[in-house]
Amino acid sequence: MHPSLKPSLLPSSGFEPLLSLLQNQLSAVNTCLLQKMESPVALIPEVAGYLISLGGKRLRPLLTIASAELCGYKGERHIHLAACVEFIHTATLLHDDVVDESTLRRGRQTANSLWNNKASVLVGDFLFSRAFELMVADGSLEILDILSKASSAISEGEVLQLSMSHSLELTQETYLKIIESKTARLFSAATEVGAVVAKASDEKRKALAQFGQALGIAFQLTDDILDYTANQGQLGKTIGDDFREGKVTLPLLLAYQKGRETSFWEDMLAKETRDDNDLKKALTLLNESNALIESKQMAEIYVEEALACLTKFPPTSLKSALEELAHFSLHREM
Amino acid sequence: MHPSLKPSLLPSSGFEPLLSLLQNQLSAVNTCLLQKMESPVALIPEVAGYLISLGGKRLRPLLTIASAELCGYKGERHIHLAACVEFIHTATLLHDDVVDESTLRRGRQTANSLWNNKASVLVGDFLFSRAFELMVADGSLEILDILSKASSAISEGEVLQLSMSHSLELTQETYLKIIESKTARLFSAATEVGAVVAKASDEKRKALAQFGQALGIAFQLTDDILDYTANQGQLGKTIGDDFREGKVTLPLLLAYQKGRETSFWEDMLAKETRDDNDLKKALTLLNESNALIESKQMAEIYVEEALACLTKFPPTSLKSALEELAHFSLHREM
Repeated sequence: MHPSLKPSLLPSSGFEPLLSLLQNQLSAVNTCLLQKMESPVALIPEVAGYLISLGGKRLRPLLTIASAELCGYKGERHIHLAACVEFIHTATLLHDDVVDESTLRRGRQTANSLWNNKASVLVGDFLFSRAFELMVADGSLEILDILSKASSAISEGEVLQLSMSHSLELTQETYLKIIESKTARLFSAATEVGAVVAKASDEKRKALAQFGQALGIAFQLTDDILDYTANQGQLGKTIGDDFREGKVTLPLLLAYQKGRETSFWEDMLAKETRDDNDLKKALTLLNESNALIESKQMAEIYVEEALACLTKFPPTSLKSALEELAHFSLHREM
Repeated sequence: MHPSLKPSLLPSSGFEPLLSLLQNQLSAVNTCLLQKMESPVALIPEVAGYLISLGGKRLRPLLTIASAELCGYKGERHIHLAACVEFIHTATLLHDDVVDESTLRRGRQTANSLWNNKASVLVGDFLFSRAFELMVADGSLEILDILSKASSAISEGEVLQLSMSHSLELTQETYLKIIESKTARLFSAATEVGAVVAKASDEKRKALAQFGQALGIAFQLTDDILDYTANQGQLGKTIGDDFREGKVTLPLLLAYQKGRETSFWEDMLAKETRDDNDLKKALTLLNESNALIESKQMAEIYVEEALACLTKFPPTSLKSALEELAHFSLHREM
């Protein structure tokens, strides 16, 4: 059975229904991405094209399109705006890989490891500027307002994360602030932009912005859990990356706050590097302390919140697909 | 005699007349910069504030203010827009220092050497986003159009420069394209924005945009010359930085194209690193081949072009100050 034909609301159908409903629009977004990253400077489409061709889930542009169409939008502007959102996302990925010194993304080499940090920084800057150029061409100051504020918030979140790197003084509150800024804010902007382009009511606009926000937090929480639990081949990156980088995420924080073996975590974060044996012990403690399960429970709360936001919309296959996406954010393995 | 009291049109009075005429407005820009780089994430104003406090010449914001006032503008918007231009410039400086692996800027340590590349990349992203936020708050799509296109062009120029690094296949035409994009484009945007905010005629707007463009090229040509000739203390960076990085600029290009000792330049650029003895020989060849003098002659052509653009404006002390700035772009020692 084709995934999109599976009964809705089953977590396992995950991401497919949305993709299946919006495949033409997504294909138009992909064409737009390819066109708009063109430049007489060959290295730009080379690096940008590599990252964009890695594909990923195109989750954020799909959210813009889905939100617009959920609010009855019939035009073409949402395609271009979805491409803007993806350009901003791609720019942050290019810069993140430089900041995190990552070598793998989605199972393939990162741009900074294939070219160099310099190209990643500058091509990221180009994509970011190009996104704003496209938004200006679209002509809505309201949308420019949403996405420029989201962009500031993303870098603010990234800098906050950098400041708190290796620090066990991180609180759950600050951890949430970081993931809200660095991840959920662009999800929320993506859905809100869809509502704005469709001239939706304030109520629907707020509901969709909040849906994006809650979904984004659930996705990032799951990401942080998967960093410790995923099947390496499926996740397409190295297990324990966050731990090796000394990045304190919710699972580590919860395990530490249980008060058992606190000195292990303190020693780990005080060290220059952490090796495979360190990771092994960390995984044991994360499991024994229930930190991974509790992290997942927190993600569930956000999935519930996301689902609640959708009750403002009448039942349609698109709404069901977004509901399944919310479930998928929790149960995904990659 | 205070520099601003020197008779006008003497190249030596340089930059001071403009500063003196616009000191109140510049002080308002500085206040705006400090306010708008604020963030609850302490590292952001720390890094951004460091770079902004290095001061520099605040040339680009001064150009926006001067252009607006030259066109009779009386409001306050030019202050905010000048701050946007400076934020974009500061963001590119933060990223440039990462790309160039520089350790000194204006005689003081660069942000990437004091903090790290990560902070420089992310705080640069923040300032860039913040600039767009401020422009959106100002509310002119025309100005957003100018500055988003300028930002794309800047990163395009930087990537082109990176692609041509260590390459003697660089032509004068491509060299000019690089400096037009990476430097002159923001000068030109800065002056054009001033004209737009003042609702100047198309003729004046074009003249000011072209003035900025020509001035920017003259400044960058002089910068590239000073990299080989400046008094190290005054320039505030290491002499021969471009040469050591394998960056091919006009002086090197002209010396190479004379056809004497071509293998020296080829060997130099093929090497991993270049040392003090290499630089010494390079300087000898640059002087013997007249490459530095010819580079300066090319800069003079652009200064003439810049001055010609100003003939569209009636004689005022502000116009004289801009004329002196054009001369200063050539004769400056720092």
